Amino acid sequence: MDRIKIGHGSGGLLTRKLIREVFQKRFNNSELLKESDGATISPGQFDLVVTTDAFVVDPLFFPGGDIGKMSVCGTINDLVVSGARPLYLTASFILEEGLDIAILERITDSMAHEADLAGIPVIAGDTKVVPGGNADKLYITTTGIGEKIPEFSHLSAISDILPGDRILVSGPVGLHGAAIFASRFPDRIQTDIRSDCASLLPLLGILKKWGKEIRFMRDATRGGLATVLNEIADQQKWGLVIEESDVLVTKEVSGLCELSGLDPLYLANEGTMVLVVSSEGAEAICESMNRNPQGYQGIVIGECNMELPGRVKMRTRIGGSRILPMLSSDPLPRIC
Amino acid sequence: MDRIKIGHGSGGLLTRKLIREVFQKRFNNSELLKESDGATISPGQFDLVVTTDAFVVDPLFFPGGDIGKMSVCGTINDLVVSGARPLYLTASFILEEGLDIAILERITDSMAHEADLAGIPVIAGDTKVVPGGNADKLYITTTGIGEKIPEFSHLSAISDILPGDRILVSGPVGLHGAAIFASRFPDRIQTDIRSDCASLLPLLGILKKWGKEIRFMRDATRGGLATVLNEIADQQKWGLVIEESDVLVTKEVSGLCELSGLDPLYLANEGTMVLVVSSEGAEAICESMNRNPQGYQGIVIGECNMELPGRVKMRTRIGGSRILPMLSSDPLPRIC
Repeated sequence: MDRIKIGHGSGGLLTRKLIREVFQKRFNNSELLKESDGATISPGQFDLVVTTDAFVVDPLFFPGGDIGKMSVCGTINDLVVSGARPLYLTASFILEEGLDIAILERITDSMAHEADLAGIPVIAGDTKVVPGGNADKLYITTTGIGEKIPEFSHLSAISDILPGDRILVSGPVGLHGAAIFASRFPDRIQTDIRSDCASLLPLLGILKKWGKEIRFMRDATRGGLATVLNEIADQQKWGLVIEESDVLVTKEVSGLCELSGLDPLYLANEGTMVLVVSSEGAEAICESMNRNPQGYQGIVIGECNMELPGRVKMRTRIGGSRILPMLSSDPLPRIC
Repeated sequence: MDRIKIGHGSGGLLTRKLIREVFQKRFNNSELLKESDGATISPGQFDLVVTTDAFVVDPLFFPGGDIGKMSVCGTINDLVVSGARPLYLTASFILEEGLDIAILERITDSMAHEADLAGIPVIAGDTKVVPGGNADKLYITTTGIGEKIPEFSHLSAISDILPGDRILVSGPVGLHGAAIFASRFPDRIQTDIRSDCASLLPLLGILKKWGKEIRFMRDATRGGLATVLNEIADQQKWGLVIEESDVLVTKEVSGLCELSGLDPLYLANEGTMVLVVSSEGAEAICESMNRNPQGYQGIVIGECNMELPGRVKMRTRIGGSRILPMLSSDPLPRIC
C-alpha cells in the first residue's frame, strides 16, 4: 500500500484497510473504533459550539506546519475565540488518486499529535477518493464541537463592543501568509519565516478569568488582521483606529512584503488572535497573555471610537493616516 | 457575479457577498446570520450523535437528485440509522474557480429544500475556492448532529445481533449507482432509472416504536447491500444468509447491470437502509415500514445464522449458493 488507489474510496476492503491502518491507528478512541455511522457524545450542562472548516492549503507542508496541523489547530482556534473549550473533532478527507500513503500518514500523524496535545478525540470521519486531476493531493474538512465556558457565555455577537474598548493582537502578523508565499518560490526566496500555525487553546484558561472584560475574540486567518478589523467595524455606529507602529511585523515578513508587494496586514495568520477588551482591563489582560508562550508578544494596537463609524483607520508611522479597506481580491489563493 | 473567482475565497468582500447572497439567503437561521466563528446550540437531556461525510459525486446533477440533496440526505440518514433525530447540520464547500454561480445556487437551493423538509438548520459553514483544475466543480462536506432517541439508546454496535434475527431492506437496491452510471454515458444508455436519493427520516418515527426489536440499522451507500452485509458479519461468530429472489432489483437496474457487468448488490444506494431485526418482530416491522412511502417496498431478505460465521451467503434463484465477498476495487468512482 504505497499510493492511494481509486479502490481506497470504494467502501470495500481497501477502504477498510486505509481506515484501520492509517486513521484508526492515529485517531485511537472508542467512538471511532466502533466503525458506526455516527459517534455518540454525552452533552454536559453547558451550551455547545459547533464550527466547520475546509483546508486546501498549498503546499501541504510548509515551515511551521502542514495541512494536518492546520486542520486541527484552525478548528480548535475557532472554538477558542467563540469562548468554548474544544471537546470533539470530526475529519473528512478528499484524497486524489495516486497520493503517496506516506504523505497521508505524515499528515494524520500531525493531526493526531495536535489533537492529543489539546486532549480532543477525532470521533468521526470520512474518506473519498477522486481520480487523478480531480483534486490536488488532499483536502481536509474538520468540524469541531466545544463547550461554551460560563465565563464567556456573553461572547457571541459584536454588539458587546463599546467605544473606548481596546484592540489587542496576540502576536506579530502575516507569518502564515508570508511562509506560504515563500514556500511557493523556494528557488527565488530564501527566508527563515515560519508560519504561526498553532493552537490558541493555551490562552483560553488565562483569558477566561477576565470574563466580560473581553468583548470579542477572533483568529486573524484568511484576509489577515485588516479583514478581521473590518468584520468587527462593519455597519457599527463606531469605528476602529489602530497605530501602525504598534502592530508587530517581523523584519523578515516586512522584507518579503516590500519585495513582493504583499501587505502584512492582509496576510493570513494561523495562530494569532484579535481581541477587543475593555479599556480598564486592556493592560492587565495583555500582561497576563504575555506570560504565556502563545501570547508573549501580545500588544494593544488601537481602540474603538467614534471617529469613522463602520471603518478601520490606521495612524501611520510617519504621522498620516489611511483607511484599511475590505479585501476585494485574493492575494494568495489556497492559503488555508 | 456569474462565476466563482479566486477572490470568492479571499475572506474579503467577495467572500462576504457569496456568503450573504448565496448561502445565508438559503440557510436562513439566527446562528448562521451571526457570522461568528462558531454556532451555539443548547444540548437537551439526551446523548448526541455526530457524523461527517464528504460528497464528490459526478455528475453534480443526476436523475433523482443532485450533490446538494445527497449531502443533506446522506448525513440525515447516517443519523437516522444511528437511532438519532437530526438536529443541526454544518456544510463546507470546496469550489473550483470558474464554477457557475447558478450551479452553486441550484445546489444550495436543493440543500435548503431538504434541510427545511427535515426541519434542520444549517448552522455553520465554510467556503474555500481552489484554482481551476484543483477540484472538479465543487465538493461538499456536511456534518450532522442529532439527538439519540431513547428507544434506540441500545443501538450502537453490531453485538446486539443474535442468530435467528432477520435482515430487512427498505426498498429495491442499486438505483443510485445505476442512475449515476447511466448519467455518465447519456449517448449510449437510454434509461428511466432514478437515484433513490432521499431522506430516511420519515421511517424513524415508525421504527422507534419497535425499540430493541431493532438490533442494527445502516444505510447501504458506497459498496451497496453486499458491503453493508459484510460489515455486519465481519469477525462475528455467526453469518448472514440472504435469498436472491427476495432482494428487489428493478427491471431497469437489472437490465443495465446485465449490459454493463455491474452487480446490483454492490451498487450504491442513497435512500435505502438495511435493518437487522428480531425474528419475532420481523413481519410486523416490515408491514409498518410498508405503510410509509419511504419503505413501501421494504422486504425481509434473509437471516442471521450459524452456517458460515463471519461470511455473507446468498441462496441463488436457481437453487445454488454463493459467497458475497467484500468489494476490493471500486466499480464506480465518485458515486457519492
